[in-house]
Amino acid sequence: MKSAWLGVALLPLVAHSADNADALAVKPRTMADVIAASKSADWRTLDPQNTLYLELPTGRVVIELNPAFAPKHVANIKALVHEHYFDGTAIVRAQDNFVVQWSDPDHTRSLGKAQKTLDAEFSRTANELPFTQLPDPDTYAPEVGFVDGFPAAREPRTHLAWLVHCYAMVGVGRDNDVDTGSGAELYVVIGQAPRQLDRNVALVGRVVAGMQQLSTLKRGTAALGYYEKPEERTAIHALRLAADVPEAERSHLEIMRTDTHTFADLVESRRNRRDEWYKVPAGRIDVCSVPLVVRPRP
Amino acid sequence: MKSAWLGVALLPLVAHSADNADALAVKPRTMADVIAASKSADWRTLDPQNTLYLELPTGRVVIELNPAFAPKHVANIKALVHEHYFDGTAIVRAQDNFVVQWSDPDHTRSLGKAQKTLDAEFSRTANELPFTQLPDPDTYAPEVGFVDGFPAAREPRTHLAWLVHCYAMVGVGRDNDVDTGSGAELYVVIGQAPRQLDRNVALVGRVVAGMQQLSTLKRGTAALGYYEKPEERTAIHALRLAADVPEAERSHLEIMRTDTHTFADLVESRRNRRDEWYKVPAGRIDVCSVPLVVRPRP
Repeated sequence: MKSAWLGVALLPLVAHSADNADALAVKPRTMADVIAASKSADWRTLDPQNTLYLELPTGRVVIELNPAFAPKHVANIKALVHEHYFDGTAIVRAQDNFVVQWSDPDHTRSLGKAQKTLDAEFSRTANELPFTQLPDPDTYAPEVGFVDGFPAAREPRTHLAWLVHCYAMVGVGRDNDVDTGSGAELYVVIGQAPRQLDRNVALVGRVVAGMQQLSTLKRGTAALGYYEKPEERTAIHALRLAADVPEAERSHLEIMRTDTHTFADLVESRRNRRDEWYKVPAGRIDVCSVPLVVRPRP
Repeated sequence: MKSAWLGVALLPLVAHSADNADALAVKPRTMADVIAASKSADWRTLDPQNTLYLELPTGRVVIELNPAFAPKHVANIKALVHEHYFDGTAIVRAQDNFVVQWSDPDHTRSLGKAQKTLDAEFSRTANELPFTQLPDPDTYAPEVGFVDGFPAAREPRTHLAWLVHCYAMVGVGRDNDVDTGSGAELYVVIGQAPRQLDRNVALVGRVVAGMQQLSTLKRGTAALGYYEKPEERTAIHALRLAADVPEAERSHLEIMRTDTHTFADLVESRRNRRDEWYKVPAGRIDVCSVPLVVRPRP
């Protein structure tokens, strides 16, 4: 896997009929081609009212919140953020191929005006929810696809939809009772999609930049990847809402929309990889293998 | 997600009939229960002739080779190892949510008696191959399961089988031509299963211990996650065959077999999680989400 992984696109003749074979020389598009051909309308900017900045010693992690699936949880997290609840807390857990998680290590902080318990928001009605469905079968759900840039699943029988646990998704830790996830303890997926968590916990967002600062953290050696010693934890300088950060200090990013023809082309470019390196295109794609493309705002 | 993630098993009454409900109090088994109940025959030891030790500054990574799928590639890697080809090379690439990869950074070392090109061994006949099939659908292949402890796929139409790209699987980097993977450049999956690579490249083994030393490596910032500066690379002290290492210095591990009733019980314990924390058991499992259990040899 040398530089050839990016590869050079093939130029096969795709003949719709024997007569016009020469006229129909089609270059299958790679993801880079699709992105290069995209229009500004194929992108959206992050809403500062639903964007969090997790400020770590190594820099900033940008999280996009999605209030459409767990509105009470998202509102409670924003209430905690406004109270500076997380500033000075720490990443207390890093379990290999699973999650990193942060919280108040001493469990002594007051939640202030935020709620201590919340209704379970693990799925919602799928009715009237824009859903870009993928064409391929999924192991865990009858239908998978994207809702406003977030990986999601849908069940026609129950008319329910839910966000799914892909790499970089952000969820709300809870105890055994389903209402115990206040948002004061958050986790991020750092490995193979733990889809068994779907519908068991509230997903509230996704890391869109700075993920490597979490995925490379030293793993904890206590049970469940908790750190044994306080000094192993990573300090959280602050967790702030982008809207509360001066414009000049914000991370200006845009994300490819998932409800466009361009996104459909991008998915197809990944279902059937046409770089010269690939010899057997998969013809399928897992919802958690679709890249969600982020770039600096031009 | 506090300590409750390990949880306490529920004790529901599973009534086969109204008459004997009390007599049929069944405790569903967690993975920990299944492992605790396992017999010594449920485990196998690593074959020193097919076990590699990757010696890094942070310690040892143990790799189990599987010669059943790519025998020429495995033999060539062992030839390179015997020549100490890898000793003093480096990890040159770490791409987030994808792979780490090592090779001779200067591309000047001689392959010695090892082959420079090898026939593509990306799949093999499935006939007479022991295959423990999983019951759930897979996005990428008609059938998935396990062969001698390795995640694999099978296609009844073509009678072909192949290893699949799960977390910790080890493969042979190649250039665009399918015969260019000599084994001098090896990669390990560190993120979401890149199943699009299946049948495009030779998989030769799997990391069975020390994975965190690879998954936490600083990611490279050049294209494809290559390190920009030589000093960012991680030195490889040695890559050795366990059989060539004195007995006292070997890592004595055993791995749960995948062709036993115990393994079937383990899979079921993960398809339907019964810890009290889980409220909606998935009822399904992805081949790359089945834990492959390793423990020190008693």
